[in-house]
Amino acid sequence: MTNFAAELEHVTDYWTPRVVGEVNDQYVKVAKLKGEFVWHTHENEDELFLIVYGTLVIQLEHREDVVLTPGEFFTVPKGVRHNPVAAEEVGIVLIETKTTLHTGDIVTDRSVPIDRQVG
Amino acid sequence: MTNFAAELEHVTDYWTPRVVGEVNDQYVKVAKLKGEFVWHTHENEDELFLIVYGTLVIQLEHREDVVLTPGEFFTVPKGVRHNPVAAEEVGIVLIETKTTLHTGDIVTDRSVPIDRQVG
Repeated sequence: MTNFAAELEHVTDYWTPRVVGEVNDQYVKVAKLKGEFVWHTHENEDELFLIVYGTLVIQLEHREDVVLTPGEFFTVPKGVRHNPVAAEEVGIVLIETKTTLHTGDIVTDRSVPIDRQVG
Repeated sequence: MTNFAAELEHVTDYWTPRVVGEVNDQYVKVAKLKGEFVWHTHENEDELFLIVYGTLVIQLEHREDVVLTPGEFFTVPKGVRHNPVAAEEVGIVLIETKTTLHTGDIVTDRSVPIDRQVG
């Protein structure tokens, strides 16, 4: 049994997803976000955002922003360029294919390799 | 954007999952459960249970029961025989491979074909 709120208490760094579970070929991760991330695309993979606390705005290229509050989720479809923005700290759950790079096609100093996200 | 609590309000029948989203090859479903389901196994697929409201006990063959409350999830690994039990009504999220039959290897009058779970 895994409790999202309890797992988020263990997270100390923003924009650093932490793997807390899996289902089939997908990882379940928690992350704390604050501020703006970086525009990026996952060419072949969807990415699901679920909110535990706070408010997250997902900016999408050529589409309206999606505003998410606790208990709400949105799946960014593969190939859609997006940028998560959190005015205040937000605690989220991410579900994405185990091979997904969280910064997508962009490698920045924000990129956290998967071996640092697991365990 | 999809709100789990709001989606659950549309569910009228127990043990009848409703597809509310997807991520990659997985469906995201909501369901209301009450009472006991049926012991079954998904030979090749994990099944993730996340609680929105209420309490769910997942009985597992040869393992201790898992008790889940809101904000908690558990992934039943593929091949593990299990039986969800809810003393009182519970609202849950299910994440499972699009091909998963919710009653697994067992076909009962409880089995709901996927075309009745979508839309």
